[in-house]
Amino acid sequence: MKISIERSTLLKAVSQAQSVVERRNTIPILANVLIEADGNEVQFRATDLDIEVLDKSPAQVERAGATTVAATTLHEIVRKLPDGALVVLTADEAAGRLTVEAGRSNFTLATLPKEDFPVMASSEYETSFTAKAAVLRRLFDKSKFAISTEETRYYLNGVYMHISESDGGNVLRCVATDGHRLARIDADLPEGAAGMPGVIVPRKTVGELRKLLEDDEMDIAVSVSETKVRFATPNITLTSKVIDGTFPDYSRVIPQGNNRRLEVDAAEFAQAVDRVATVSSERSRAVKLQLGEDRLILSVNAPDSGAAEEELAVAYGDEPLEIGFNAKYLLEIATQVDRENAVFLFNSSGDPTLMREGNDTSAVYVVMPMRV
Amino acid sequence: MKISIERSTLLKAVSQAQSVVERRNTIPILANVLIEADGNEVQFRATDLDIEVLDKSPAQVERAGATTVAATTLHEIVRKLPDGALVVLTADEAAGRLTVEAGRSNFTLATLPKEDFPVMASSEYETSFTAKAAVLRRLFDKSKFAISTEETRYYLNGVYMHISESDGGNVLRCVATDGHRLARIDADLPEGAAGMPGVIVPRKTVGELRKLLEDDEMDIAVSVSETKVRFATPNITLTSKVIDGTFPDYSRVIPQGNNRRLEVDAAEFAQAVDRVATVSSERSRAVKLQLGEDRLILSVNAPDSGAAEEELAVAYGDEPLEIGFNAKYLLEIATQVDRENAVFLFNSSGDPTLMREGNDTSAVYVVMPMRV
Repeated sequence: MKISIERSTLLKAVSQAQSVVERRNTIPILANVLIEADGNEVQFRATDLDIEVLDKSPAQVERAGATTVAATTLHEIVRKLPDGALVVLTADEAAGRLTVEAGRSNFTLATLPKEDFPVMASSEYETSFTAKAAVLRRLFDKSKFAISTEETRYYLNGVYMHISESDGGNVLRCVATDGHRLARIDADLPEGAAGMPGVIVPRKTVGELRKLLEDDEMDIAVSVSETKVRFATPNITLTSKVIDGTFPDYSRVIPQGNNRRLEVDAAEFAQAVDRVATVSSERSRAVKLQLGEDRLILSVNAPDSGAAEEELAVAYGDEPLEIGFNAKYLLEIATQVDRENAVFLFNSSGDPTLMREGNDTSAVYVVMPMRV
Repeated sequence: MKISIERSTLLKAVSQAQSVVERRNTIPILANVLIEADGNEVQFRATDLDIEVLDKSPAQVERAGATTVAATTLHEIVRKLPDGALVVLTADEAAGRLTVEAGRSNFTLATLPKEDFPVMASSEYETSFTAKAAVLRRLFDKSKFAISTEETRYYLNGVYMHISESDGGNVLRCVATDGHRLARIDADLPEGAAGMPGVIVPRKTVGELRKLLEDDEMDIAVSVSETKVRFATPNITLTSKVIDGTFPDYSRVIPQGNNRRLEVDAAEFAQAVDRVATVSSERSRAVKLQLGEDRLILSVNAPDSGAAEEELAVAYGDEPLEIGFNAKYLLEIATQVDRENAVFLFNSSGDPTLMREGNDTSAVYVVMPMRV
């Protein structure tokens, strides 16, 4: 194999690859990126056995062929090459070496045979549809903060992407929860998505997917089967196993009858929560909300370090209420609101609270209270 | 005590204070900042028993007095207050409480009596002089990378500031070394500095001092005794114990007879070293320099991961030479050069190498070679 490729093109491909490979793995080939050159195209493939990312880039292929080389080392080298450089990759299959040449720089890297590289088995996808990058970005960005990190509840370690009914029609929905808070984000049902099996997209996949979604107007091809999900741009294909488990029936967690309604400027609210939480001891981080007519008092009482109180002018016309929350959860939820005022719907101080952006029900958050 | 103070003024003072206090200390009062208000001024004082920083800021003092409060908590609160806020600090000495009020925010913090605060004993300083911030910044910035981190060689855990002879005249000199590399930086002798005892300024003090040196033209008052050093701007006074030890006779380490002269573009050289070092195993990180007429080949050979080579056009007219260095040391030294080409003076592959900026001898670096 011998190819010439622009440094920036190569950097993009190996950057994606090195982020997928496992840093500390015991199987050497899993640290490598598979490079396959043919025609006027070169493919870069990396996997951790759960996720596979495949990048197709244009290159001048002098001699077709394939090899595998350490993804992080190649990435480091390409990153340090001067911008605008033309990089020549030459594989010496017999010697097990890849040379990387650019200008007066010359690197020789150990390779492993391409036959050892575990290419992910191809799947039959039951459902395929196309969605704009901006739509997918919203679905995952607004839900991922609620993904559980508890490994024992593995079925909560991802975002549950599925089709659901809402207001009489079907929507594409992403839900994540860790038992303390929940995010439920809806988007219009893309053409062809009806009948899609619900899948739990693992946290790492959500992170890798994010890199494909920078360009708002980019069409992303989504393919879903019972065991795998695939997201593809014209150049990059991200394939991932989905979490083999059943996502709990979250609908029972979303309160229906909450009718004490607080409306508050989301940014002002978040800043105030952040401030009063400063004095609380790191472990509990409980912040108390005292609601009266058109006013909200946020307070924290930490016997060892002190106390804090802040008053906000809000819209509230229901019965007075005192309720406590974990400051971190409250902050994370409040910072999801980017367009309008945050609307909180409370029931009692012991019941889950619902939060949404204004009257928009396409993004709904639930947070459990805590005793204060 | 009751004072009103601008948020930005207060933030600057407590920011400096919280950086000096020890994060994990067993003596509670050492986590606190001493606040003393009198006249139209408030003083903030923090210490870790080795360093004391004192900030004097203008404030509207309604009731004079003093108290101490946790520096990091106060800093966090002030940092989160909105820009432009006016902050009112009120100490309730009887209750052991300080309230912090700004707008609709209200914080109560536990205090400790000011009598418990360990104010650093005042000293007689033998030498006092004034230097521009830019001059001191150069002296310490260019030397501090070579400070040793080995705790057993405590006398190398700082920058040795002293008066020395150079070219027949006296200079103010800073030297740091860890045994592998050395930096020796000179500045014109400030008026009044003659006769100053040499002092080893600890690493942490060098870090805190740096914050006082942002404004090039600011006059910094420097006071030195055998045991302490003090740096003062009109508002901030930084007092520090110096390291109680003898700095080794570094002059013997600086080679005199090196006459193989390499001149190279410092930035180009640093980038090339950084690139070839990519393939080396993390532990050794040895890079080999092969010098021939007007050319330099940098190379790394790491049996497990690969090899790298890069050629640079340089100015070199002496006998060919092969010499190896720790890539990290070479990089750190090369990145000190900011004005001119780097000039390396070699003797043999086993002798220390000297580096300076062009022909300027006011900043000289020494690096020990390693076998390659």
